[in-house]
Amino acid sequence: MDRTDPAASIARAAKAYSNWGRWGADDVLGTLNFLDEAKRREGAALVRRGVSFSLSQRFDMDGPQKGWRRRTNPVHTMLDTGTDAAAGHQGFPHGLGGADDVITMPLQCSTQWDGLGHIFDHGRAWNGRNAAEVVTSDGDLVTGIEHMAPYVAGRGVLLDVGRAIGTAGELPDGFAVTEEQLTATAEAQGVAVGRGDLVLVRTGQLARARREGWGEYAGGPAPGLSFTTAGWLHGTEIAAVATDTWGFEVRPNEFAHAFQPLHQVAIPHIGLLIGEMWDLDALAADCAADGVYDFWLTAAPLPITGAVGSPVNPIAVK
Amino acid sequence: MDRTDPAASIARAAKAYSNWGRWGADDVLGTLNFLDEAKRREGAALVRRGVSFSLSQRFDMDGPQKGWRRRTNPVHTMLDTGTDAAAGHQGFPHGLGGADDVITMPLQCSTQWDGLGHIFDHGRAWNGRNAAEVVTSDGDLVTGIEHMAPYVAGRGVLLDVGRAIGTAGELPDGFAVTEEQLTATAEAQGVAVGRGDLVLVRTGQLARARREGWGEYAGGPAPGLSFTTAGWLHGTEIAAVATDTWGFEVRPNEFAHAFQPLHQVAIPHIGLLIGEMWDLDALAADCAADGVYDFWLTAAPLPITGAVGSPVNPIAVK
Amino acid sequence: MDRTDPAASIARAAKAYSNWGRWGADDVLGTLNFLDEAKRREGAALVRRGVSFSLSQRFDMDGPQKGWRRRTNPVHTMLDTGTDAAAGHQGFPHGLGGADDVITMPLQCSTQWDGLGHIFDHGRAWNGRNAAEVVTSDGDLVTGIEHMAPYVAGRGVLLDVGRAIGTAGELPDGFAVTEEQLTATAEAQGVAVGRGDLVLVRTGQLARARREGWGEYAGGPAPGLSFTTAGWLHGTEIAAVATDTWGFEVRPNEFAHAFQPLHQVAIPHIGLLIGEMWDLDALAADCAADGVYDFWLTAAPLPITGAVGSPVNPIAVK
Amino acid sequence: MDRTDPAASIARAAKAYSNWGRWGADDVLGTLNFLDEAKRREGAALVRRGVSFSLSQRFDMDGPQKGWRRRTNPVHTMLDTGTDAAAGHQGFPHGLGGADDVITMPLQCSTQWDGLGHIFDHGRAWNGRNAAEVVTSDGDLVTGIEHMAPYVAGRGVLLDVGRAIGTAGELPDGFAVTEEQLTATAEAQGVAVGRGDLVLVRTGQLARARREGWGEYAGGPAPGLSFTTAGWLHGTEIAAVATDTWGFEVRPNEFAHAFQPLHQVAIPHIGLLIGEMWDLDALAADCAADGVYDFWLTAAPLPITGAVGSPVNPIAVK
Repeated sequence: MDRTDPAASIARAAKAYSNWGRWGADDVLGTLNFLDEAKRREGAALVRRGVSFSLSQRFDMDGPQKGWRRRTNPVHTMLDTGTDAAAGHQGFPHGLGGADDVITMPLQCSTQWDGLGHIFDHGRAWNGRNAAEVVTSDGDLVTGIEHMAPYVAGRGVLLDVGRAIGTAGELPDGFAVTEEQLTATAEAQGVAVGRGDLVLVRTGQLARARREGWGEYAGGPAPGLSFTTAGWLHGTEIAAVATDTWGFEVRPNEFAHAFQPLHQVAIPHIGLLIGEMWDLDALAADCAADGVYDFWLTAAPLPITGAVGSPVNPIAVK
Repeated sequence: MDRTDPAASIARAAKAYSNWGRWGADDVLGTLNFLDEAKRREGAALVRRGVSFSLSQRFDMDGPQKGWRRRTNPVHTMLDTGTDAAAGHQGFPHGLGGADDVITMPLQCSTQWDGLGHIFDHGRAWNGRNAAEVVTSDGDLVTGIEHMAPYVAGRGVLLDVGRAIGTAGELPDGFAVTEEQLTATAEAQGVAVGRGDLVLVRTGQLARARREGWGEYAGGPAPGLSFTTAGWLHGTEIAAVATDTWGFEVRPNEFAHAFQPLHQVAIPHIGLLIGEMWDLDALAADCAADGVYDFWLTAAPLPITGAVGSPVNPIAVK
Repeated sequence: MDRTDPAASIARAAKAYSNWGRWGADDVLGTLNFLDEAKRREGAALVRRGVSFSLSQRFDMDGPQKGWRRRTNPVHTMLDTGTDAAAGHQGFPHGLGGADDVITMPLQCSTQWDGLGHIFDHGRAWNGRNAAEVVTSDGDLVTGIEHMAPYVAGRGVLLDVGRAIGTAGELPDGFAVTEEQLTATAEAQGVAVGRGDLVLVRTGQLARARREGWGEYAGGPAPGLSFTTAGWLHGTEIAAVATDTWGFEVRPNEFAHAFQPLHQVAIPHIGLLIGEMWDLDALAADCAADGVYDFWLTAAPLPITGAVGSPVNPIAVK
Repeated sequence: MDRTDPAASIARAAKAYSNWGRWGADDVLGTLNFLDEAKRREGAALVRRGVSFSLSQRFDMDGPQKGWRRRTNPVHTMLDTGTDAAAGHQGFPHGLGGADDVITMPLQCSTQWDGLGHIFDHGRAWNGRNAAEVVTSDGDLVTGIEHMAPYVAGRGVLLDVGRAIGTAGELPDGFAVTEEQLTATAEAQGVAVGRGDLVLVRTGQLARARREGWGEYAGGPAPGLSFTTAGWLHGTEIAAVATDTWGFEVRPNEFAHAFQPLHQVAIPHIGLLIGEMWDLDALAADCAADGVYDFWLTAAPLPITGAVGSPVNPIAVK
């Protein structure tokens, strides 16, 4: 990584870690191909106590969005209410009343998966496709997140880097987590990361954001993965990675004039499924308590046709 | 059940099958309380092959909604596209491009859970609360579906009534499935239903709707549970039930002048979590092939604060 | 017009009636340039009785949209209600209560203006610009409808073709109104059409749609302007034209294999402001009664930044 | 006005200035009844030069909303783009391309009218109706803003208080404009206010908000009408009033523990149509230049069925 030459660094990593063609020309799943039935059997065997954890933030107006790129927090409104039902406004017979509701939300507003059509590199989408042909105003015509709908269930692994090397469980903003630190965390927590795993990296920043607010812009300074972890993300053959931060990689980015360069390698070239703004705190506390850092994880995106992302409520079961 | 007196029939069932107070005055989970850690261990042990199934319809404009009670199909639009990225419109450095999207949808528009605040009986919500105090235009202030976020993962059981007693796998519209038929189906398929289970009842109607269209109104004639199954829903102590139809219970309803009377008993009185418009066809074909009708099921609602329902992508793993 | 060769016919009309460059390279107003201050003085002088008419349909779920190209009817929901206010849920002091609301709607869902960025011809937008540079997923960056915000107020002229040559005030579906019929209508109704006018053409179809429903698709068969009126639209130097139909021009279109060919000439080449689904019935009845077919008309689009259309409530005053 | 007793002050003003019953029990227009045909003739005669002004802010993400009570800025997205059209994605014949768009916005998000169902006093809506029966989650069933659709066109009067008594054209935040100051401004500017007028009060705060930002909350400190102007609003028999501020009345409100007390009198008791966040700056500059402070004004709300407010693009013509 040459901090003075982001373009060359990105191009080098893109070439070194490309999975283009690895699963055929028609592939729509990327690294999710690594998550096979054997891995699911291995994951299910991790359910020992039967305790379950939601890894999702609540979806409401108290979320992180401030308007950047027209991203708002979710707006949830009622079509019918109990107040109206009790007042007899609804016209149903025999005392029936009902409530209905509607939501308007960016698919990137809170706990989410980034689909394969979310990021491009020089006009190229995942598997080398022409971005202009893949994602139009009709949505992602090829790699829409609906294709992943049945598959995101397997072995989850938590790397609680905040707890392992942070202060009071938190890494500071701007802290770039390296491959060495990921490996050291796994060792310290007695867990191995391998092919087909769903890896969760906790930095502790969400706890801080909840305590202190998200500030002027959800994409502001934060800890996150270093650009240099691209090789690890590729070489471990993990199926997906998620963090408890807005943008997965460290912010500000490590190049003076770049924007989310690790995304630019990880999504279009590695074909990696990336989760953001996951709430890992309750699960992490449990893992710290019982010393078990792997579990069964289901994190199914909503199959919104042509979507380049999806809100998700990931469920870990130990 | 007295077909000439719906009000009395509903009142009788409501009284007979009430779970009010069963889990304390502050309960927000209803029958989901039956789904405990032991049940999750039992469910996880059902993962034998590692194959996973999505039980969700795709969320798009081809859905069932026709405008009734302001319910539309999901409207998914793009904030940024690959076409724009390729055209260099986005202003990111070093060739980075991106796509973002937004959705507007009723929470009852497609594959969904009905939350405990979705239906009332004579102004009463689940656990005997005053509906007017529970669900206002700010949403469900007490039993919002966010409270269920971590818990809906356990043993799933498929009762494929369409296959067991229908024609070509489908029950006709207006067919009211009785307790006897549910029991006979379970026996024929070699599966037992019990406390804490997540029960999926397949009628075959979704396959028909997909083939022939939803018609003028998604809530039109359909097979579904008979009003008389209220006792079974209560007595089996299942955690949740879901069907492949718009409205879970038979349509037209069995009383001349009623509207969704089984909802009126099941949600506010039994506290039952109900799923609708689930796509059970791929799972059912697999169950028919291997003769195994129980599995691990995760069906976590999005934790939308105060929501009375949620779209869901349920994942069954066998 | 050669019915067997739509491409050539469109190209010929586009060339013959082009206004590209007429108002300079930076123009964002098109024919609205014809509506000058003198014309506004002329229009204001037409206010004789002081009676006003709304020419807008109501915006609600009973509108014409059926889902074509993700167009829905407007979904209007409440953020706060009187029911909640009366129940004391809102927390305001001293008895204050309030109601707020939200709308989600396509800008093309009902009574509307088509902006200059709404239609392109072979990748060219109004004034010869590259459509790909003008309208991105950020909206119309050049000719957004906000630029027209102050100007759409002037002399309105009603040509009630339905009344002049139809049956019971209505033209049949598929009826192509010609220049001769427009001229004859104007003469019969004693009104002249000229430079800078806002011309309203009533076919009577909206009355029929309201009576009989919009059918399966709002863009189905309807009366409307013939493709051959392109010359008249150009030569009269009118500022804008609006009709009481979904699509302004006759449907089905007059070429076997075309789609809205008159739009393709009128918007990108003539730079003409086009209104659709205007409700002209009350105004038309008044004009028939008093024999006066011109009036003061204000029809200001909402200045939605970058919009290619806008809902509008046009107000005619006689 | 007793600053130590807001409840009594509000009650006293409500009683003193009530118009309940003035236009019959079925009235849905309130003070808009004052705007009659004679007033429209008078207004139209004010068109002398033919120059027109939009009094609307642009509707986009740069607006004043920060999320209070789930109010967001307008989110405008594209269903089709020129980029897609140029790329040949749309499937229309003969080179036709198109762009469509969608908006999601609170009706109170920017330049707007407050409808008669927007504010209640002790559970009472305009004309003494029960708020709980008037505005449900289905919207305003009685006084929805669609009823006003044809009528809001008449004589406009600008009272530029910012210019008359402010500094550099602006009143400071927290400045409560009194009846005396309104009268003095009218006299200084040579204009009379009377029955049926549409009165625009400029404070200069919008210019400041545009220059310095809206701050943390659009409803923060601002100049505006004093609570004591209730009598003037009632006695002048004006049809409507609008200001260039978020909330029309001075903020913070003049009572220690009140919230928008003048609204509480003006809307439910006077039946007054109130406009907020109007951009009066260009018009005001013109009025200062030519010394003419009255004009023709059309400010038609969108007839959204059951709405308690509407975005509006008011057009003044001089």
